[in-house]
Amino acid sequence: MNANPKFLAATAQVDDAVVHPLPASRKVYVTGSREDIRVPMREVTQADTASAFGAESTPPIYVYDTSGAYTDPAATIDIRRGLAATREAWIEERADTELLPGPSSRFGRERLDDPKLAELRFDLKRKPRRARSGKCVTQMHYARRGLVTPEMEFIAIRENLQRERYLADLPAAQRDWLGRQHPGQGFGAAIPSTITAEFVRDEVARGRAIIPANINHPESEPMIIGRNFLVKINANIGNSAVSSSIGEEVEKMTWSIRWGGDTVMDLSTGRNIHETREWIIRNSPVPIGTVPIYQALEKVDGRAEELTWEIFRDTLVEQAEQGVDYFTIHAGVRLAFIPMTATRMTGIVSRGGSIMAKWCLAHHRESFLYTHFEDICEIMKAYDVAYSLGDGLRPGSIYDANDEAQLAELKTLGELTGVAWRHDCQVMIEGPGHVPMQLIKENMDLQLAQCHEAPFYTLGPLTTDIAPGYDHITSAIGAAIIGWYGTAMLCYVTPKEHLGLPNKKDVKDGIIAYKIAAHAADLAKGHPGAQIRDNALSKARFEFRWGDQFSLGLDPDTAKEFHDETLPQEGAKLAHFCSMCGPHFCSMKITQDVREYARQHGVSARDALAQGMQEKAVEFVKQGAELYRKA
Amino acid sequence: MNANPKFLAATAQVDDAVVHPLPASRKVYVTGSREDIRVPMREVTQADTASAFGAESTPPIYVYDTSGAYTDPAATIDIRRGLAATREAWIEERADTELLPGPSSRFGRERLDDPKLAELRFDLKRKPRRARSGKCVTQMHYARRGLVTPEMEFIAIRENLQRERYLADLPAAQRDWLGRQHPGQGFGAAIPSTITAEFVRDEVARGRAIIPANINHPESEPMIIGRNFLVKINANIGNSAVSSSIGEEVEKMTWSIRWGGDTVMDLSTGRNIHETREWIIRNSPVPIGTVPIYQALEKVDGRAEELTWEIFRDTLVEQAEQGVDYFTIHAGVRLAFIPMTATRMTGIVSRGGSIMAKWCLAHHRESFLYTHFEDICEIMKAYDVAYSLGDGLRPGSIYDANDEAQLAELKTLGELTGVAWRHDCQVMIEGPGHVPMQLIKENMDLQLAQCHEAPFYTLGPLTTDIAPGYDHITSAIGAAIIGWYGTAMLCYVTPKEHLGLPNKKDVKDGIIAYKIAAHAADLAKGHPGAQIRDNALSKARFEFRWGDQFSLGLDPDTAKEFHDETLPQEGAKLAHFCSMCGPHFCSMKITQDVREYARQHGVSARDALAQGMQEKAVEFVKQGAELYRKA
Repeated sequence: MNANPKFLAATAQVDDAVVHPLPASRKVYVTGSREDIRVPMREVTQADTASAFGAESTPPIYVYDTSGAYTDPAATIDIRRGLAATREAWIEERADTELLPGPSSRFGRERLDDPKLAELRFDLKRKPRRARSGKCVTQMHYARRGLVTPEMEFIAIRENLQRERYLADLPAAQRDWLGRQHPGQGFGAAIPSTITAEFVRDEVARGRAIIPANINHPESEPMIIGRNFLVKINANIGNSAVSSSIGEEVEKMTWSIRWGGDTVMDLSTGRNIHETREWIIRNSPVPIGTVPIYQALEKVDGRAEELTWEIFRDTLVEQAEQGVDYFTIHAGVRLAFIPMTATRMTGIVSRGGSIMAKWCLAHHRESFLYTHFEDICEIMKAYDVAYSLGDGLRPGSIYDANDEAQLAELKTLGELTGVAWRHDCQVMIEGPGHVPMQLIKENMDLQLAQCHEAPFYTLGPLTTDIAPGYDHITSAIGAAIIGWYGTAMLCYVTPKEHLGLPNKKDVKDGIIAYKIAAHAADLAKGHPGAQIRDNALSKARFEFRWGDQFSLGLDPDTAKEFHDETLPQEGAKLAHFCSMCGPHFCSMKITQDVREYARQHGVSARDALAQGMQEKAVEFVKQGAELYRKA
Repeated sequence: MNANPKFLAATAQVDDAVVHPLPASRKVYVTGSREDIRVPMREVTQADTASAFGAESTPPIYVYDTSGAYTDPAATIDIRRGLAATREAWIEERADTELLPGPSSRFGRERLDDPKLAELRFDLKRKPRRARSGKCVTQMHYARRGLVTPEMEFIAIRENLQRERYLADLPAAQRDWLGRQHPGQGFGAAIPSTITAEFVRDEVARGRAIIPANINHPESEPMIIGRNFLVKINANIGNSAVSSSIGEEVEKMTWSIRWGGDTVMDLSTGRNIHETREWIIRNSPVPIGTVPIYQALEKVDGRAEELTWEIFRDTLVEQAEQGVDYFTIHAGVRLAFIPMTATRMTGIVSRGGSIMAKWCLAHHRESFLYTHFEDICEIMKAYDVAYSLGDGLRPGSIYDANDEAQLAELKTLGELTGVAWRHDCQVMIEGPGHVPMQLIKENMDLQLAQCHEAPFYTLGPLTTDIAPGYDHITSAIGAAIIGWYGTAMLCYVTPKEHLGLPNKKDVKDGIIAYKIAAHAADLAKGHPGAQIRDNALSKARFEFRWGDQFSLGLDPDTAKEFHDETLPQEGAKLAHFCSMCGPHFCSMKITQDVREYARQHGVSARDALAQGMQEKAVEFVKQGAELYRKA
């Protein structure tokens, strides 16, 4: 079928460059209550503080690690075999699922039976799994019945970022200092100082958080999306029109998670998306999301009006049995809302939204996603696929922000959330889009109120339309703000938005911009332990530990490269100065003088302050009085 | 003195590449009440709307233009002659200044008399100007006496962005639509729908805005910094340790203003900064700021403790007579505050602040900037140099944000503002730094309260420390937010912050990130007319006018380049699709169908909405009821 040897499953591989640890970093696993709960962390080693700065020991920092086995030198990476199915035992233990003889979707069977696809196909030995008849296998279902799953315990350990261990390892004198952080302003979010498995369970039971964890994706490392947890980010990938190899497709995913993508949405189109998706899921330690209507549209050769519930249903089952962890379903695009978009500046910009709008108009009927919503729930709960209720009517311009169409759809998503929850289906809500800063709060408040606190998952929002080529920045501003207000996951935007397809650099630029937004939001909400990394990096910066400054940053490679542009010599990374002020005068050094001053005057720094103020007060008042009397 | 021919004044020039108009743009001048008030605008031509989208005419958009004569093909650019002294007549008319026989600073005279510097020197024919004895020549002084200066009228025209003309040129049916914008949330800012010269005068008189306009910089195009005006941005430039040519130094300034720098700070150090500065000012249409303590420090060979009031005073006069428009003066770094920095994570990170801290500690005396503050006022008012009261104790890390040292200094800056205002000196206040999002509002509120609403001028703030290499983004987030809250000018941060010296790409990246932040803030505050550009760009985007989308953006070159990466053919820029969805299915096209639907049903779009809702209501309620009864 494909002459290109890069396409052959037998030789598929990823670039070695994306399969090595980040600088000064080591993969560690924290074991939970049972041996098979092994939670990955990135341990970033730091150099000790030099004697000039007080000769202190500096324990490692633990960083949330989305990169999976790829950064574990002990793991053997072979994308033809996929990742280990670490969750399989947990799923089996629950004894509420069964293995199917083969795919139960018509399309899935056709693809499997097609001998021409053999050379493209991932060789999965495992059979697809489904809930036993009458069973619900969602994490929400377990949570509501009071069950703390291994997934929940895994998440609790993961979210704590080893904060207690880090503080315990610090010299006593530094504990209060380096562990301190500013109180947050949570706008209703309430993050406990220690995340327990019970807290995870409770949040999932209430629908305030979701754990996207399809039973057919046992390779995934459990993660949670909810506003009382770390803010997450999603990276979109998709094959280009110009065909790329299997290895390249998997590599896009590994590249995304290397830089911190918490989930990956596969938005591929084209002939072999079924097979491509299989490769991605089998090799992905993070949840995979899709927009099934895209593939359904392919099945009717791009003619939206020919879509049917049956074709869509088969697509859901096909993808659910491959292991997709969440589906974007644009069920809020109702017929009655479509005319509301007629007076918009930019109409309907969501691809899924416009597909459904076209279908509704062509048939002059209510959307089948809406009328069949409970049928969809039956599928979702049989595999634990989470809903990502799509905002098909999101604004595509500042002008259209918070308009009737958008808000009518949001209200509908709230209704549908209620329906899904009655089935114990997990739900998150997609949000805009393009929104000026002063209207962001309204979005968040309405979403929380109307969608009953289901997690919000927003694209940006972009805070202005006037910077094509820089929409990772226009939107990182909005993403940071809406993350602070309570959005649980931020869908990245790359610099190529509105202009073209992102390349590898664009993907990384988008991810780093969104890691910044998510972390800024974590700080603002006062997530316990978030500021430890800022504190550690700033201390390294102050002490001229250049290597530590690089490795504690979100992108050590670029930081080092930028530093080397001005001062390439290896010695400069040990130097107690930088290129900004040069060796002759360094503002950082002055603080050492200040501390020395405080020491010489026989007072602690704090006393020096009080004493200095008092001693000097009279003198200053005199001087000041004189100064101002002249005026 | 210098063998390098690039250093010779006789051959100095800038690259032709920075001296041409931006795409589809034409420099226009709007004439005020007198012929010599000619306010520059960038007129961006747009293609008419294609028949598929309604065949409408599309008048040009007027954009605030900081780029000076460099983008005017009618102007002859010769940096050896400098820009035309367009303000000179206005200054002379006021008859409160006199020409000096030569520089009145000792250092200025020495440089002028040194024959070895001849080949480096800008050949200025004009003599320096100073207020006549007993006169105050500040714009604030005039404003308080009720005088509307030509500078104020110029600014009023400039700030209105030709909004009324643009609306008048629109087809009547489009006027309400394309001119509409979301109400702002101004946090106390109150921007009138039309800026009048009287409003400008009043704001300057109250000290809520400043017009940096040294009488020795008659080449400058008047601009205003205040929270009831467009948010401005500053770009820092400075020579590298590795010597660069005169042409290169001037080119850095022209590069900065080409992309939208509203002011430029020259932070150069080294031997020939006096001469370099002269070249920059003579060729700059935007106000130039400096930190005079940097040059004073050079004069004592980098030994802070050897600084004296006399050396500093001479430096102020030297630079004031060259035409520097605002001085950063770190007069708030008082001796008593210095010990407050001893317990900080990153001590004193401001270079000026640490110089003064070192001086204070060495002498165990109050800062001479503080004790001589009124003497400084006497100089400022004789040339109309504005104060930029430096935040020498700004936080250099998230940990240090809003701490006692920072806030003690801020309070002092408020006191000093009062002193300066008694002299009718113009004042803005510099602000941080590194601040997590939830603490930004406190900064702004304290600044407004304690500094009596003097304009705030902040560096970022950076909202997290963990992204070295991306601090243009960590700080654009904070800049957008603090601009929204009321900050009048944002000092840019480049990707090289903390790591090295910015190159040309870094400078542009920093400027664009800050233009985004400033514009997002203008939108959020509801600056009248700000949204016109977003509306126009989004309409162009929707109508697939690719060229217009590029030229209306902040960086047309990059937008076009990104588009061409995926679809390089010239024809693609006329195509009614883009690379995201391809030609077969386009979500933008659906809206055309929606509009068609509304037309076919014989209703206006708005009626279609109401009708659709009503017609469908019963049906939907039934369906819905049925749907939910199943659950």
